[in-house]
Amino acid sequence: MPMMPVTDSMFLMVETREHPMHVGGLQLFRKPDGAGEDYLRDLRRSLLESDNMRGVFRRRPGTPVNTVGHLRWAVERELELDYHFRHSALPQPGRIRELLELTSRWHSTLLDRHRPLWETHLIEGLRDGRFAIYSKIHHALMDGVSALRHLQGTLSDDPSDLDCPPPWGTRGQAAGNRERRGSLLNTAGKTFGQFAGMAPAAAKVAREAFREHRLTLPMQAPRTMLNVPIGGARRFAAQSWPLERVRAIASASGTSRNDVVLAMCAGALRDYLIEQSALPDAPLVAMVPVSLRRRDAGEASGNNIGALLCNLATDLADPGDRLAEISTSMSNGKKLFSQLSPLQTLLLSGINVAQLGVSAVPGVVSNTRPPFNLVISHVPGPRSQMYWNGAALDGIYPASVLLDGQALNITLTSNGDKLDFGITGCRRSVPHLQRLLNHLDTALAELEGAAGVR
Amino acid sequence: MPMMPVTDSMFLMVETREHPMHVGGLQLFRKPDGAGEDYLRDLRRSLLESDNMRGVFRRRPGTPVNTVGHLRWAVERELELDYHFRHSALPQPGRIRELLELTSRWHSTLLDRHRPLWETHLIEGLRDGRFAIYSKIHHALMDGVSALRHLQGTLSDDPSDLDCPPPWGTRGQAAGNRERRGSLLNTAGKTFGQFAGMAPAAAKVAREAFREHRLTLPMQAPRTMLNVPIGGARRFAAQSWPLERVRAIASASGTSRNDVVLAMCAGALRDYLIEQSALPDAPLVAMVPVSLRRRDAGEASGNNIGALLCNLATDLADPGDRLAEISTSMSNGKKLFSQLSPLQTLLLSGINVAQLGVSAVPGVVSNTRPPFNLVISHVPGPRSQMYWNGAALDGIYPASVLLDGQALNITLTSNGDKLDFGITGCRRSVPHLQRLLNHLDTALAELEGAAGVR
Repeated sequence: MPMMPVTDSMFLMVETREHPMHVGGLQLFRKPDGAGEDYLRDLRRSLLESDNMRGVFRRRPGTPVNTVGHLRWAVERELELDYHFRHSALPQPGRIRELLELTSRWHSTLLDRHRPLWETHLIEGLRDGRFAIYSKIHHALMDGVSALRHLQGTLSDDPSDLDCPPPWGTRGQAAGNRERRGSLLNTAGKTFGQFAGMAPAAAKVAREAFREHRLTLPMQAPRTMLNVPIGGARRFAAQSWPLERVRAIASASGTSRNDVVLAMCAGALRDYLIEQSALPDAPLVAMVPVSLRRRDAGEASGNNIGALLCNLATDLADPGDRLAEISTSMSNGKKLFSQLSPLQTLLLSGINVAQLGVSAVPGVVSNTRPPFNLVISHVPGPRSQMYWNGAALDGIYPASVLLDGQALNITLTSNGDKLDFGITGCRRSVPHLQRLLNHLDTALAELEGAAGVR
Repeated sequence: MPMMPVTDSMFLMVETREHPMHVGGLQLFRKPDGAGEDYLRDLRRSLLESDNMRGVFRRRPGTPVNTVGHLRWAVERELELDYHFRHSALPQPGRIRELLELTSRWHSTLLDRHRPLWETHLIEGLRDGRFAIYSKIHHALMDGVSALRHLQGTLSDDPSDLDCPPPWGTRGQAAGNRERRGSLLNTAGKTFGQFAGMAPAAAKVAREAFREHRLTLPMQAPRTMLNVPIGGARRFAAQSWPLERVRAIASASGTSRNDVVLAMCAGALRDYLIEQSALPDAPLVAMVPVSLRRRDAGEASGNNIGALLCNLATDLADPGDRLAEISTSMSNGKKLFSQLSPLQTLLLSGINVAQLGVSAVPGVVSNTRPPFNLVISHVPGPRSQMYWNGAALDGIYPASVLLDGQALNITLTSNGDKLDFGITGCRRSVPHLQRLLNHLDTALAELEGAAGVR
């Protein structure tokens, strides 16, 4: 195997029991019409028998023990599929709540480095008759965006298509293309890789870029309860909202759908922090990965990609004012990037992501103010209703990596006519994480009120 | 809190993701007569509401991150009980096989060091209507023997006693006594603690003890597939056999019950290694922790305790010859200890356990022959049928710690009229671990044949 790039190995090197470095995805499916009692057992058996496996799912670290020696990937020839692909069940009463509790547990445990770095659970026991799949994969193999795209690639928009690959499989000839690691965050990560060990130089160039263009420096985030050292246990919450509600607010208020989503998150965070008596005076700052790719550019040009800092305006009580402020912050951010040369853009996103990388090193958090308060990612998903071997996809919820100083992450994806939110939090630092779901719901309604679409 | 003794902290310091340092126990219960559909839900609720908690279950490392700083225990005041006490379910078809598969997974994951170091699962979904409890606790808090005794202490021999404490609780005034850490392995561990950093000196004294008494050195174990570096994933298997069958063989052959149990294990290991084309020419050597406590000594005198090396005679094809050889080896071992002064006994067991301790340090395994091939522990349990709040205990199966170079462990406990075997193996190094259960069954039948009791 070739040498492992630093963008892979750094995720293995910084991983500790407090900082598992895997990403996850929870998929919720409706069984196909006419599915019998043995549907899941048969499904599991057929998946165990399939020999369709994408190459990346056979990769394991050449040197499993946690040293600096993670320089090569090894290929696992005799993969023990029933170790990686697990059959699980919800305890009574089998609500979404029990599903999220189990997902929280699974998302908290480290992957075994002596094997390819992934696990997939097929989950039965939902009382509404649906079933779920939770998948996790190490960030060294795939970042969150790539992992979501990979899962989406196993689906079909045709309910009669029964040739969908397993969650670890691939669709025939497209495999080669999909092996390319071309996602947004990953490309940003590569930038960091190129500048590892020379961050001060990169920072200097970026500062000069700002000065040259007479731009202001990115905003300073306040200290909050979300920016503390974290433990190893996670809490995961997930819910879907109709895309149409977000679209209506955006349209009525002259903002983008992404602005509205950020305003939903901002409103929910404000309510949550007030409830915890922990709302800072200064507004929270979100790090928002964005694609600035031009429409005419091919898929291979991953350079026009960056991470913006967004003022979440959590100091403003009025939802309409908050949305306006967020929208302004985001378009300033975008303008900032579009005024820069590709190299300067690359450097600037490199800086933002480098700060993320540095905070993963234990002990760095405590005394500096955070570069941002949380990451909010909006990953584009399928536009129509998707199916997996005839089972309709009801939701696909991303579960993310947390870092020291970053105890909460919100990642959402569009999925047909819905927006699927996945919220990952440190179980100790972010109590009652699931209340954020109610607060998101309230925030959405308040935005509808402010925009006059309710 | 007082300083953490080295016997506690060493288990935290040597722990890595390849070597989780917790012990576990799987208990299998029959529901009480008349238990309704909500029995387990009500049970869970009442346990969550109980405020009975033994002090050790509130202890967490003062410094959670893995450094040399584990010098004090801290007390967790606001323990999040529903993190530690989990509700779990078996997938279809709900056989013991699914229960063991889930137990294997749970036994493979590290405990969160930011919290008290234990987890307990209440498990529903066994198709025969029974339920199970899997408990795990860090070796720094309790060794395997203490953990089993603790669980036994929550039971009652009276089916109408509905005042049994939760698995993490304690029985009123006896609590103080039970906090004493007086188990067999732990005392041996303390010996190691006293000699940490001075093993060569201790070895010298022990060698002199041998010379002085003109005793031969303990036997040399062959290299086997069981004595290799291990990964983090575990496989757990468990089964009960009637104590009466073992007793009959012992009585007919003039050996002890423990000899017969060791011969069962020896026969099973021989068959397993033949199947794997991996039986060494030289006989396997087991490390067998034994109590040499005199009947008249109080519970507090833990000194007459040691670990014997037993020749398992796996080179002999005849089950009767094997049993005879094992019995001879064990009585030689016992004689050896009884000829020594208490200090010499202590030193000798210190050496054996010190080798165990050293092998936990990654990288030590590879080039030296193992001091023994596996640990086989026989822990005394309750003599009569036990109950937990009216639910009859069908089995209590110990799950043990593995170390580099020690990929398999067999621990059994007597339980009323049964012997409950728990087998813990490295999932990678010991393939088809569950076949050992069949081999144990075969070995028992062969011993009955050899002893003429069938």
